[in-house]
Amino acid sequence: MNDVILAADLGGTNLRLAAIDSSGKIIHISRRVTPKGVTPDGLISLVAEMESECKGVLSSGTEVIGISFASPAPAAKDTSVLSKLPNLPSLNGMNLRSALADRFHLPVTLENDATAAAIGESWIGASAGVADSILVTLGTGIGGGIILNNEPLRGLDGTGGEIGHICVEPDGHPCGCGSHGCVEQYASATAIVRMAREAGLEVSSSLEVYDAAMSGDEPARAVFNKMARYLGIALAGLINAVNPEMIVIAGGVAAGWQAFIGPLGDEIRLRAFSGPAKRAEIVRSVLGDTSGILGAARSGFLNLNDRR
Amino acid sequence: MNDVILAADLGGTNLRLAAIDSSGKIIHISRRVTPKGVTPDGLISLVAEMESECKGVLSSGTEVIGISFASPAPAAKDTSVLSKLPNLPSLNGMNLRSALADRFHLPVTLENDATAAAIGESWIGASAGVADSILVTLGTGIGGGIILNNEPLRGLDGTGGEIGHICVEPDGHPCGCGSHGCVEQYASATAIVRMAREAGLEVSSSLEVYDAAMSGDEPARAVFNKMARYLGIALAGLINAVNPEMIVIAGGVAAGWQAFIGPLGDEIRLRAFSGPAKRAEIVRSVLGDTSGILGAARSGFLNLNDRR
Repeated sequence: MNDVILAADLGGTNLRLAAIDSSGKIIHISRRVTPKGVTPDGLISLVAEMESECKGVLSSGTEVIGISFASPAPAAKDTSVLSKLPNLPSLNGMNLRSALADRFHLPVTLENDATAAAIGESWIGASAGVADSILVTLGTGIGGGIILNNEPLRGLDGTGGEIGHICVEPDGHPCGCGSHGCVEQYASATAIVRMAREAGLEVSSSLEVYDAAMSGDEPARAVFNKMARYLGIALAGLINAVNPEMIVIAGGVAAGWQAFIGPLGDEIRLRAFSGPAKRAEIVRSVLGDTSGILGAARSGFLNLNDRR
Repeated sequence: MNDVILAADLGGTNLRLAAIDSSGKIIHISRRVTPKGVTPDGLISLVAEMESECKGVLSSGTEVIGISFASPAPAAKDTSVLSKLPNLPSLNGMNLRSALADRFHLPVTLENDATAAAIGESWIGASAGVADSILVTLGTGIGGGIILNNEPLRGLDGTGGEIGHICVEPDGHPCGCGSHGCVEQYASATAIVRMAREAGLEVSSSLEVYDAAMSGDEPARAVFNKMARYLGIALAGLINAVNPEMIVIAGGVAAGWQAFIGPLGDEIRLRAFSGPAKRAEIVRSVLGDTSGILGAARSGFLNLNDRR
């Protein structure tokens, strides 16, 4: 049995499709830049092209048994339609499930990308063997996935695990979600760049701010202290209320680990109860940008097992 | 089969013990004032007195098959020892499980009081038939219980559902937990009285503030608006991240419903995603101060079933 699932991770910048077997081995991965303003038909054509590429390298006897898609949209168990995609507005309203089923004649699984990343890490990554964990992706925005009793918390509207819009400053920076002072406005890559510019630094990426902080630049260090403080406020509340064994930090900003893990730990210890704060190990993602496709593949395999 | 469980709810002010059958019928309830500085031995003697009272009214043939205890302490699945009881410091460190087992020779179940209240409401109260709900108790402090897939979220340290220490004001009022600006400092009965006094009102209970607000007193109304705003901030984050179907509001402050439900709903709609915000029905507890003993009894019956 060497069956594979084709698992995609659709982002505002990149689209990836990989053939993944039931042990989590990535047999082939195909990458494209997400075309600006891509239409539903355009997306399916692009996926078909990548599907051919993946299939072309599979050994004979390997069967594709499903297609799984992680996207930044909320994904409840019965989700079919993409929604709330600020970075992919041309795909809002697309019935991704039926479009994929019609084209590929395979069982379709849809997941939210951060939930998929949490599933991936808990399958064969940082939180493998850990029953209760929270994954935080610090990227353009902040996403999250909550795993309880080895099961992802999806919620009926598919926003389960959505921790980026926890308010950490009641009258704080306005957020695209309509609220103010969401943690996403203080701890995402976008926020780090904004706060650095507010402090007079001429930077265009969070990595530049990180490099400056590591070279001892005080304003850059202050940005990461502020980022860590607000992320710590949000995580402390979750640590008390969810009492997880592990928090996995993923996304581009995780590369700045050395600049924020110290003050982040301090803030959590200051705010959370001591038992749960000690319990919740804070670790980095080990699967990096493949956590989402791996988690999507895992969900696909589990759905197929449920069906049998 | 008319077996009953003796279920207790231990608070800083009152101790109740009730004989409850497996349908949730309270056959008899015994109440006492919790003695100031009560010792572990004193507590057990008092419970024994109340047990006799309860047993005295049971019809012949009714058997007591377990004893369940809800307390303000965190209660993980394997909890035996009371801890973190700011209002009952003389009981910290007591091995309640073995003390009860030794005295009553019955299977013992321990629950956190807010988690027990959530279990009770989801058994035969406001959230009956609702798979995913959050209960918030607004009393001296703020407690909480989270029910997901009909199961309470307890956590390995027993702090699951502990939502009173979500930070809503980073540099806000100091909290007994060691943090600052916890929602408990803005939306508990204690906080309502404090904020009212800060506003120049001479009051000694949240009910007096409520009465003043309902008579049109502007400072009292402002207190409830502030309370609703901060509670809304905390609940909006939970609504996004947990995506519950219902939020049950319990505790003494729930009596002030008319003064806060309007601005609370406004704040949630302002802050949370529209889908989950519409999904999460905000309702009042229907079991009132019996939700904790009922939930403790329910846990006891479930534990006995697991054992069989």
